Formats: sequence, C-alpha cells, structure tokens
Amino acid sequence: MEKLFFDSDYMEGAIPEILKKLIVTNFEKTAGYGLDEYSESAKRKIREAIANPDADVYLLVGGTQSNATVIDSLLKSYEGVLACDSGHIAVHEAGAVEQSSHKVITIPNRSGKVDPADLKQYFELFEADANHDHEVPVGAVYISHPTELGTLYTKQELKDLYEICQKNNAYLFLDGARLGYGLAAKTDVTLQDVAKYTDVFYIGGTKVGALFGEAVVFKNRKICPKFFTLMKRHGALLAKGRIPGIQFDTLFSDDNYMKYARHAIALADKLEAGFRAKNYQIAYESPTNQKFILIENTKMEELKKKVSFSFWETYDKDHTVIRFVTSWATREEDVDRLLEII
Amino acid sequence: MEKLFFDSDYMEGAIPEILKKLIVTNFEKTAGYGLDEYSESAKRKIREAIANPDADVYLLVGGTQSNATVIDSLLKSYEGVLACDSGHIAVHEAGAVEQSSHKVITIPNRSGKVDPADLKQYFELFEADANHDHEVPVGAVYISHPTELGTLYTKQELKDLYEICQKNNAYLFLDGARLGYGLAAKTDVTLQDVAKYTDVFYIGGTKVGALFGEAVVFKNRKICPKFFTLMKRHGALLAKGRIPGIQFDTLFSDDNYMKYARHAIALADKLEAGFRAKNYQIAYESPTNQKFILIENTKMEELKKKVSFSFWETYDKDHTVIRFVTSWATREEDVDRLLEII
Amino acid sequence: MEKLFFDSDYMEGAIPEILKKLIVTNFEKTAGYGLDEYSESAKRKIREAIANPDADVYLLVGGTQSNATVIDSLLKSYEGVLACDSGHIAVHEAGAVEQSSHKVITIPNRSGKVDPADLKQYFELFEADANHDHEVPVGAVYISHPTELGTLYTKQELKDLYEICQKNNAYLFLDGARLGYGLAAKTDVTLQDVAKYTDVFYIGGTKVGALFGEAVVFKNRKICPKFFTLMKRHGALLAKGRIPGIQFDTLFSDDNYMKYARHAIALADKLEAGFRAKNYQIAYESPTNQKFILIENTKMEELKKKVSFSFWETYDKDHTVIRFVTSWATREEDVDRLLEII
Amino acid sequence: MEKLFFDSDYMEGAIPEILKKLIVTNFEKTAGYGLDEYSESAKRKIREAIANPDADVYLLVGGTQSNATVIDSLLKSYEGVLACDSGHIAVHEAGAVEQSSHKVITIPNRSGKVDPADLKQYFELFEADANHDHEVPVGAVYISHPTELGTLYTKQELKDLYEICQKNNAYLFLDGARLGYGLAAKTDVTLQDVAKYTDVFYIGGTKVGALFGEAVVFKNRKICPKFFTLMKRHGALLAKGRIPGIQFDTLFSDDNYMKYARHAIALADKLEAGFRAKNYQIAYESPTNQKFILIENTKMEELKKKVSFSFWETYDKDHTVIRFVTSWATREEDVDRLLEII
Repeated sequence: MEKLFFDSDYMEGAIPEILKKLIVTNFEKTAGYGLDEYSESAKRKIREAIANPDADVYLLVGGTQSNATVIDSLLKSYEGVLACDSGHIAVHEAGAVEQSSHKVITIPNRSGKVDPADLKQYFELFEADANHDHEVPVGAVYISHPTELGTLYTKQELKDLYEICQKNNAYLFLDGARLGYGLAAKTDVTLQDVAKYTDVFYIGGTKVGALFGEAVVFKNRKICPKFFTLMKRHGALLAKGRIPGIQFDTLFSDDNYMKYARHAIALADKLEAGFRAKNYQIAYESPTNQKFILIENTKMEELKKKVSFSFWETYDKDHTVIRFVTSWATREEDVDRLLEII
Repeated sequence: MEKLFFDSDYMEGAIPEILKKLIVTNFEKTAGYGLDEYSESAKRKIREAIANPDADVYLLVGGTQSNATVIDSLLKSYEGVLACDSGHIAVHEAGAVEQSSHKVITIPNRSGKVDPADLKQYFELFEADANHDHEVPVGAVYISHPTELGTLYTKQELKDLYEICQKNNAYLFLDGARLGYGLAAKTDVTLQDVAKYTDVFYIGGTKVGALFGEAVVFKNRKICPKFFTLMKRHGALLAKGRIPGIQFDTLFSDDNYMKYARHAIALADKLEAGFRAKNYQIAYESPTNQKFILIENTKMEELKKKVSFSFWETYDKDHTVIRFVTSWATREEDVDRLLEII
Repeated sequence: MEKLFFDSDYMEGAIPEILKKLIVTNFEKTAGYGLDEYSESAKRKIREAIANPDADVYLLVGGTQSNATVIDSLLKSYEGVLACDSGHIAVHEAGAVEQSSHKVITIPNRSGKVDPADLKQYFELFEADANHDHEVPVGAVYISHPTELGTLYTKQELKDLYEICQKNNAYLFLDGARLGYGLAAKTDVTLQDVAKYTDVFYIGGTKVGALFGEAVVFKNRKICPKFFTLMKRHGALLAKGRIPGIQFDTLFSDDNYMKYARHAIALADKLEAGFRAKNYQIAYESPTNQKFILIENTKMEELKKKVSFSFWETYDKDHTVIRFVTSWATREEDVDRLLEII
Repeated sequence: MEKLFFDSDYMEGAIPEILKKLIVTNFEKTAGYGLDEYSESAKRKIREAIANPDADVYLLVGGTQSNATVIDSLLKSYEGVLACDSGHIAVHEAGAVEQSSHKVITIPNRSGKVDPADLKQYFELFEADANHDHEVPVGAVYISHPTELGTLYTKQELKDLYEICQKNNAYLFLDGARLGYGLAAKTDVTLQDVAKYTDVFYIGGTKVGALFGEAVVFKNRKICPKFFTLMKRHGALLAKGRIPGIQFDTLFSDDNYMKYARHAIALADKLEAGFRAKNYQIAYESPTNQKFILIENTKMEELKKKVSFSFWETYDKDHTVIRFVTSWATREEDVDRLLEII
C-alpha cells in the first residue's frame, strides 16, 4: 500500500489551473523581466484584492530570497532587522540577511510570535541605553503570518505592532510564505488588514498552489523606488518574468488562492480533530495547516512505516513532537487513511 | 498581420517535453530542496554528458543568481573576479557580485572575449607591481561562452585561459547562459571541453528551452563542499527543487538540449545568410543565435513597424547596429517572413 | 576638590616611555605601512614573549577593528562566528562583524564566558540537526580574556575550548583588549598559554598603556597569508605604521606591558578590599581591573558628586550595580581618596 | 654621508606642536570616543575655518578608512560610487569600498581628475540607456584634491562637478588626504570653496603634520545623522578619541596646518625649479608637493645610491618617471643637497 506524505506543503507541483495556463500561453512572445501583460494583470488583481491602488507589487521566486531582498530594501547600511528567535530569517536561511551585511536582532518568541509588549519594551530599553550609539539600531521588524509554529497574529496585535514600528521609525515587514493558509484559518485578520497594518508583506505562492513564486507588496512606491534594480542585484529578477506572472494571475482569478487554501485548512482541521478523537495531545495549538502532535516514541516508529511526517523536537526521552502538514494538494482520502492508521 | 519578434531568446515558455513532464509528475510527492529523484536524475545525466563522475552539479534559477553565487563560492573575502569590460557581471547585473563584497576587475574585451595574452599580462603586471598588496588580487576569472557579442572561444583559447588561471591560483568560471547555442554553432569546442578546461561552468536552461534554470557544474566537490548552504544564503535554493530537476532531466533526455539548440542555430544562420544576400553589413561576426546587423536609420524605423528587435548601439548619425535573436522556439516561417520584409 | 575618575581604562594618554620614544624618533624617516624597523622590532619581541617564532604579528589600531578584520580573515563567506551573548562583538560593535556579512551566533554566557560544555553541546546539536545545511555553520569561536565582566578563563578552560574548536574545524580567537590586566591578575594563565591555546589573539594596547593599538598574533602565517591586504581593505593599515610599532616596541621593552598592568591590578585589588571592608557587596566577582559594586541608589547619587564611575545595570528599584575601573594611569592617592569617600 | 629621502609624505612623526600637546595633556582624564573637549575644540575650529556652523565634523584615523566609511554613509545599498580610473578608491585600497558591497564605477581620468564634461556625459548616457535599471546607479562621485597625480581642480571645475552631482541626485565627496598641500599651492581654490562645493570632504592629517587622522566634514548633519554608529561599525571610532582631537585642535591653532603645508610647497617648488634648471623634463605638471620627473635609467640607478624616491612608471626602455615628495618635515638643506647631486 502506498505511503502517505504529510511532511510539508511543497511536495507537489502546482494547481492544475496554473499548468493549464502555462500550456495555453507557452508560445506567446512577451517582454522579459516582469514587464509582460501577465505580470501586469497579476499585480493589478493583487492591488484590487487589497484595495490599495498605490501598492507596489513585485513577483519574486522564493521565500528566503524575498526576505533578504525586501529587508535589504528597507534598511540603511548600519541598521538591523528585529525578529523573534524562532523567526525563519533568524535560524533557517543560512545567513541570507547577513549576506547583505545586516544583523538579525532577536527577542524571545511567544508562541512563535513577536509580542507587541516585548517589542515596545525593546525599543524603550534601546532608547534608554546610554551606549546605544555603539549598537545596531532596528530599522525594520520581521514577522511571519502564519508563524513557523503555525500560529496567527490577531488583528489587534498586527495593529499594535504597526503602531509601535511607526512610532520608532521602523518598517513592519510580514513574511506571508503561508499567508493563504493563515487567511483561510479561524482568524479576524483579512488580506486587507495585512496590507493595512504592514509596510510591506508577501503573498506566498510556493506553498499555496504555485510551482514557485512570492508576491511582494509594498504599501507604496516611495518605500523603495528602485526595488527592480535591487531584485536584479539579489538574483531575484527572472528573465521570463511571465512565469510567476501567469501563476499569480491564475491564483488571483476565480478565488483560486483562497479556495485552495481553504481546502488545506479544512483537511488540517479534520486531521487535528481525528488526532484529538484518539486522545493524542496537541503539542502546540495551531489553527493553520501545520499540526504539532505529541507522540510516544514506540508509536512514532510504527507510524513511520506507513506515513511520512516531520520530526519537530524531542519532548522527553519517551515522547517526540512531530508535525503533519496539509496543503492545497492534500487528498481527503489520505487524511482519512491517516486517521485510521493512528 | 502579426508582428514578428526577434528581440531575445527568453520570450516564450518552455519546450513542450518539459511542460508535458510537469503535468505528468504534478501530484507526485517528492522531497524538497533538490533532494528529489528528478534532480538526482538530471545531475546524473549531466555528469554522464561531460564524462566526469566527480562533477558536483547544482540546479539554480537564473543567470545573475548563478554568477553571484558561484563567484562568492570561489573567492576569499579579499579577492576579486576578473572579467572583460563587456562581461555580463561587469555591466548588467546591478552589482550582484559586489553584493557579496567582491570587486569585478575588468580588462578590455576582444570581440567580447578575455584574450589569453591579455590575461597573462594582467597577472604578470600585478605580480610586478610593488604595491600589489594594496590591491585586490584576482581569485577567479569569469568568461561567458557564447559571449555577450555572440562570439565563441576556440578550444585552444579555453585551454590557454585555464592554464593561465591554474598557474596563477585563480579559478576559471564559464557562464553558459547560452551554452547550447554555442555548442550547436560552428565550433571546435564540445561540452566535454567546456567541462575539462574550466573549474566551474553552467549550462543555461532559461534561454535554451526551460521555463527557467541553470545547471552549475563544479569539476569536483572540493571546490566548494558547502555550495548547498551558499545557495540557501543567496536565495537560490528552491523549496520545490524538483521543478528545475524535471526540466534539466528532460533537457538531457533524447538529446533535447542540443536538438533545440541546433534548431535555433540553423535559423540564425538562415537569417544571417538572408541579410547578407540583401547586402546588409554584419556589424559583429557572431556564429551563434545573436546576429548584429548594421542598418540605415530610415530603414530601421520602417522595419520597426513589422518586426521587433533589439537596439544594440548607435553606429553613426545615419546608422544603427541592431540585434536579431533566434531561439529554440523560433519558427522557420517567421524567419522567412522577416527575410521577405527586409 | 578635584573629581575622581574611575569610569574606564581609556581616559588618559600613554605611558611616558611611549611619549618619550615618539619624540626621540620623530624626525627619523621610515618606510610606511608597518614595514619600518620599529614595527619589526615590536613583532620580534612579541614572538619571543610567546616563544613562537612562527607567529605572524600585525599591529592594528583598535579593538572593534581588530575583531572585525580578524574574524573576516578566519571565515568562509557562509560561515559565522560564535560568541556568548555578552560578547563585545555581539552587542557593542554596531554590527562590525555583520559589515563583513558574517552572522554572530550567540549562546548564553556563564559569568561572561563561553563555557566549554555549552560549546561542545552547541556543535553536537548543530551536527544532529537534520536541517543544519540551512543554517550558518560556525567557522570561528570568539572569546575575550578578560571578559566584559572582568572574569578570566582558567588554563583548563582555554585548553578545552581550543580542543573543541579543533575537533569541529573552527578557529579559536581571543580578544585581549585588556589582556595585560588579565595576565597580571590572580590566574594560572600565562601569555604563552594564551598563544598556545588559540589560533589567533590580540594584545590590547589601547587600554594598557598605549595611545592606541592592538597587536594581532596568528599562530602561523598559513591561517591568513594575505592579512596585510585584508587590513588595507578594512581601513586598518596605518600609513605611519611606525606609530603603533614604536608603541608596542616600548610596551614589550623593560617589562613595561606587565609592569603597568600589575600596577592597575594592585590598585584594583586595593579598591575591592576597601569596598569590602566597608561592607559593600561585590555584584560580580572579577579578579581584574574592573570591579562591580552593588550600591544603594541614594548613596550612589551622593557619590556621583565626587566620583565618576560607570552605571552597569539596575539591580532592583533601590539598588544599582556600578563599575569602577583602574588602569596603568591610576594614582594610588586617588584610590585612597575614593576609599575615604565611600 | 646620510641618504636623502623623498619617497613620500608619511615618513616622519608629527609636527612638534602636536607632540608637545600630547605630553602636556597626557594625564588629563577625558571622555572616550571623541566626546572629549579637545575633539570638540578641533571641530569648532574647523567649522569656523570653513565658515559653516552647520557642518558635522568627525575625526577618523586614516584615508582608506575615511573613504570607505564616508562612501558607505552616502549610498543606498544598490548604489555605486563613481571615480576616475586613477582614483585611490579604484586602485589602491584593496577593495575597501566593495567591502561595504558598493561598486566603484570608473571613467578615464584627465590629468588625474574627473572632468565635468565627462561626468555630465556619463549621467546622460546612463539615463538614456534603456537597460539602466539592470545597472548600478551612481549615488556619489569621488574626487581627490590634490589628485593622485598631484594636480588640482579649479574653482570652476569644483563648482561644475557639484552642480552636475546635485542635478543627478548624487553626493560629491572630496578626498583631501593631501588637502593642505593643495590649498598652499598656486590655486584659486580656498578651504571654504572646498566646503561649499562638496557635500562631504576630509582634511588630511596623516600626510600634513599629524601622527595620523583625517577630519571628515559633512555639509550638515542630515546627510548621515548616524555617522558615529557607522564609524563604530567600520572600526573607525577610537576609544581615545582625544588623540586625533588634540592633533586637529593643534593643527587648526596658530595657522599650523597651512603654515606647514606652505613649507612643503615652497620646497617642492624649489625642487622642481632645480630639476628644470638642470634640464630635466617634468613628466606631469603638478603644482603640489609631488613632483614627477622623467629620468634616464642609467642616471636613475646612480641617483638611487644617494637618494630614495618613488618609482612611478616606465616611460620607455631607457627612461623612467620617478616621483619626489616633500612634506611639512622636509628640510631645505636636504632639497639643496638633492639639487647638487642631480
């Protein structure tokens, strides 16, 4: 019997609508570097979706690249970016931010999040520190939504973070690698809220239906008028810019982006309910497409034979936290089979 | 009547074989970051094609990114890379090499190429300069094949450059963004020669049949054992590494890469012959898929109404050099129509 | 009555022997960039003092500059440097290490030190982490001796750290901005031990008798054969290299370096004993020239009128930790006056 | 008989007034990092000398360091600095500008200078280039005065360069490592002109009377409000900031800076006149303290036995261009002796 895979949300290709569109348009001749009509259409649809005609949209290739390029666009040479210690840029991007000579300054996470009160205090202590001219000032704050732990900010938290940033002359940047799953989950945060309470964010395509691609959205063009040049400099400018263009144009047509995201969340919820029903303990509460389960090691070893999932962390000598991830491509029958097996 | 496009070789999507394979494999679940079987298969086929089982192959996204990441992998912090003044990294990459803190040192080009005698002299003069410890030493030499002017190195030139580099403890790096077209043109250089007379090179996919992708080939793993980490750091590591994997696996199956390259060269040759037949002057001799034509300005303006091509440079007040490019996707009927029009 | 100053160890000029030598040699004509005879003599004396004829010695200007230049010389582009969270490079150098694109990776300090067991565990966990290829590998470990808290490593700790580093292919780098005071304090560590159990370290001049200057000592020339060029690149190469040359030549003549260091330690000990005698609580045990005293806030405010010292940190709402520092230039009568006042 | 030295202007220590002041102030206790009264006094005197009370002045250690730190303060991450091909930053600083990830863009020099017409054309061609978004935009222009060839800009040239820069949103930065000698030579440019027609410049101390030190002068504080932090980041912030403070305070007292500069120029003029009187050919016209002489190789070899000078360049197989440099420390009797010998 075929093995089940719940390791991550980047194990398959793209939603069929994207592949179809790639085929239909394959021999059309378009301008390079994102100046084609598909990229233009995608950008227009995104500006409409967030109800901000001033928004400046760019289509990049991947998450680490987007993080590094955006952060480089926001900071002065001597500034750093603040993240919580579980932030992706702080741990799992092999120093991509430092590659642009910027320090990642960390504060402890609270359920994967930067807490507004902690952030406020950080700025206050920095200001109060007599030696702060010998230290790296924070020019931008990085958050991810959903976070690396699958958690979500509330609308009030986003609003607070944004206000604290504005008061302290720092940009707020939201990494939305899994944004669709965040918006489709139980939340009071809409896409328009994300656009409103940040200076720049991105809409993840790689993990939400595309072959690859992240749509970076600046609140306005003044934040970085030369972002195109900066993309080139960071190796983030595709010659065939139409490829992400076609993908985002498709994702933002016919409600595709949210439709597929809702599918993943529905199955994630079913998966969580199934584990709970069998008395598994949820290690971290996550309303999105990543579910963290506490499991006995002997049980885990047995499960491994039939199901592929992610090791998350050692809990104690007999228990482990493991992660199950659903995606736009997950089949309900696979979730059902998993729930039978456990 | 439909307009003709000869602007560049990145105006269309991908060869049909690639699109087909993307569809067939779309719902397979594979490991991320290039650890999938398609990437493995692509790498194996490339190692076979160059007859070097020790070769260390990585699949990146685009040309500028490949250049910046490879050069960063070759140089010590205080070293620079030498290129000729028309080299892509010296002019058209928005400072992507400097982004990694490395200087691009230039010498005058000869028909778009680094001349072995010039390179030899550069190293000798540097060595003889009493102040050279105050200057940036060359740790790598960058060449492109074909060059930005469509020209090609001879086998002897490659051999000479490689020997000069080895003697001076510098790596030789060949940018093969259009490598297929170079190999399919009239030349005594084979893919195996390219692999033999360089330390690292890449096989361009973006311009030769793929949606995107460049296959970077190191002579052996010792040159940069941590290139995977460096890719991540440069935002060059795709989560869905299978996408370039599938593309290069397809390009290196059934002779696709060379078959499509030969198609482009055959049409480029026909195009050049047609221009010559109508007594146009060839501005720069190029045996590859870029053809540089000298044209009267009035004639050029007229042509523009029906054909899209690249402005190359002003020749004199009445004449301009323009560029026509063929690709794997160019249709013979379009070349025929162009030759009727001119 | 004149105010007393115990703020830091860089409040005065230089030991008189240095000023004398500067005057005597002022109109001699010497080669620039450290190629003069005084620099040569200084380096020779340092090599003798550490009993390592292979040592490669360079004279730089200041601490932050030395840290940044040395770390850049040790790391590959994708590597980072590990320090404890109180390490100077992690906090108070305004991102000088990140300026060279390298991450500073921190672990919690133990009394200002990197604990060998913690370091061992860090390397083990990194190795065990399945995702470590997405993380910044440690290429060097940074320690300071004395530390920012005035503490000292034992000989065994140095030995252990060095062995752990060697096992994990990381360099061990010791910041000796206050090295003289460390060697003159109660310790089982000699200058030769420092040289033996590190790959590179520096002998601080700025805080121990010189106008400025730090002598960087590599175990051998192979570690960075082009350090001269790297100094230039980092703006650390003085045209009049003889100025630090003369200073270190003088410091390493007639036992000056240690003689003046012992003077500072004797007075620091007297100062500590005096505080203890008056029942002050020592906030952190420091055997070197920095003394950390817990004081009532009302008392502190009173003391401020007559004595200048450093605020260190808030202890609770009624108490503060303050720092008193002695140096080669401290006068015994000033310590006596301080002890009367408190 | 003692050998004569005319190699460079950094072969001796400092003017006696500086050494005296260092001794007198040696045991005074002052704040660190340039916050002392001597640094304040020096800055005040410089602001007065240039008649600009808004000027923002910082005291750095050396020329390469000043160039790198200032340029980093002026540029956005994706911008480069333009210099002429003989500019010090382009050739002899081991990539210090690239260390901050910025490209040095060069245009051909005219007698060591950036020609205003060339600069204007550069900006026009860049603007006209359809691909300029793929290229590094110029954010600052670097000139030196005197240049590396000892030449000087006229007041009109400075004015033109400044206007061209302003029109193109680029800063104009003047490297004044030998500024005193430039001002003391035959010229229509005053110190106030330099301050007026640049955004930032520096007054060289290392080559004009100090042990070391360069005074960087920004037109106003808005250009880089956090330059202090940037200095720290670049390792350019001295703990004992008073040392350059005392030196510039002394140089800008009693007309010392210009008095000593005039001395060097008077002797340089005498030296040039003496060579001309003996029918030597002047290789490059230089009105400042560097004189470039064409000499027969046999004659040169003979001269070397008694005089030390700089090799400049090979002229032809029988002739060489050599350089003689005077300084504040040059003795008239040595010039006389030289003129007898030649």
